[in-house]
Amino acid sequence: MNESNRMKDDHSVKGCPLRRILLSVSYDGTRYCGWQVQPNGISIQAVLQEAIETLTGEKIQLTGASRTDAGVHALDQAAVFDTHSAIPAERFALAINQKLPEDIAVLSSRQVSLDFHPRYQKTSKTYEYKILNRRTPLPCQRLYSYFFPRPLDVEAMAQAAALLCGTHDFKNFASTKTTVRDTVRTIYALSVQKKDDMITLRITGNGFLYNMVRIIAGALIFVGTGQSTPESLLDALESDVRVVPGPTAPACGLTLTSICYDEEEI
Amino acid sequence: MNESNRMKDDHSVKGCPLRRILLSVSYDGTRYCGWQVQPNGISIQAVLQEAIETLTGEKIQLTGASRTDAGVHALDQAAVFDTHSAIPAERFALAINQKLPEDIAVLSSRQVSLDFHPRYQKTSKTYEYKILNRRTPLPCQRLYSYFFPRPLDVEAMAQAAALLCGTHDFKNFASTKTTVRDTVRTIYALSVQKKDDMITLRITGNGFLYNMVRIIAGALIFVGTGQSTPESLLDALESDVRVVPGPTAPACGLTLTSICYDEEEI
Repeated sequence: MNESNRMKDDHSVKGCPLRRILLSVSYDGTRYCGWQVQPNGISIQAVLQEAIETLTGEKIQLTGASRTDAGVHALDQAAVFDTHSAIPAERFALAINQKLPEDIAVLSSRQVSLDFHPRYQKTSKTYEYKILNRRTPLPCQRLYSYFFPRPLDVEAMAQAAALLCGTHDFKNFASTKTTVRDTVRTIYALSVQKKDDMITLRITGNGFLYNMVRIIAGALIFVGTGQSTPESLLDALESDVRVVPGPTAPACGLTLTSICYDEEEI
Repeated sequence: MNESNRMKDDHSVKGCPLRRILLSVSYDGTRYCGWQVQPNGISIQAVLQEAIETLTGEKIQLTGASRTDAGVHALDQAAVFDTHSAIPAERFALAINQKLPEDIAVLSSRQVSLDFHPRYQKTSKTYEYKILNRRTPLPCQRLYSYFFPRPLDVEAMAQAAALLCGTHDFKNFASTKTTVRDTVRTIYALSVQKKDDMITLRITGNGFLYNMVRIIAGALIFVGTGQSTPESLLDALESDVRVVPGPTAPACGLTLTSICYDEEEI
């Protein structure tokens, strides 16, 4: 690198020891094909990666904790990348933000150990699924909730939700496209709360299968309309034959709200 | 109208007695140039008018209670139009919605007397102004709040808000573009509340001057940062010389939440 280039962008100086940077990322998933780079649209990962590459002048690989689907939002997604740049770890957040569109933001950045991996680390993840339950739609809520005009029995939904908590084989609550073999997961908490017209499902677990939260949301809505019962969800949990517990609820209602790592492992 | 046309769209049958229909309208103002028809963009009024005209086959004139600015949202705006169509008054909401984009919705429709006018009737209007007050932006809040990263003294803002309540001459709290002569208005209530990172200003009054709510929001933010004091807002209220109490806060934070009419006058 010659002197004039270095002056233009001091951050691209190479040769500093390799560091792994953990980002907390928030985004509106509306116009993206999901977290992961896809052939058929713009991904959040690609936009973030490009912003970081412009900043550091390095080719980097960004790894997210959760591969959120097209249209799914995140309040606090975790992602890491490795860098030789001289930028102080905590400064990355502000610096990357200046190169991002308004629908993606880095909330914070910190250095983690080089063997920290956002997906293989012990974590708990929390998602929220929002259902706007009223007769007429509200335009300002349309991007961040699922408009469902028929009445829902919130108490029945809460009863069904309680049955899903704990460690179970959730194979019937995963998309058939899932490629993982071990379909046992633990749900630590699953609450159903209604405030005015908005029903919020809040689910915390040690991990989720492909489409699992949206299938749970769809199954609970099915219980709410009376098309299904809390007990039938138990049957779906226990059945070795493929049982579909309900429709997969639309992506726009889903937000990844937080990912908690064991601080000792960071 | 010939028989085949009539069969195609029974609603366009003319000759029923003239009725005035009151609509409750909700919209996301993000991509519009405001309520009112403008030469420089798409207005909410124009989109709604076109939907109603397609439905009834008549040329109609829609009149809104509040001419919200470009980018301002509404949870519940009121608007009226006159029609000779045979559609039952309560059915208009659903029928119009089928011809609207997702960012505009009619919540309800009813018949009102032919001399009801949404702007000249006695009303109280309520607006909310949302300020996202945290160090980093949240993409999913960006369209419906004003991101303000510097710390705000909510208590000082609430003190200043209390001083603005009551009947005052708000000439210094209106855009210089205002064309009305009588600038005296009554604010019935003005609250400042913080929940998590979101500060909500909620203001109810008998009417508001052009840009008045956004100027009040800007003035309260100025108090919140310490650039101004509650007392200086009183000075701005009382001064006959033009005093600018603060910057006009951006449109995206503002939502018209409701318009209340005296039921006896409808």
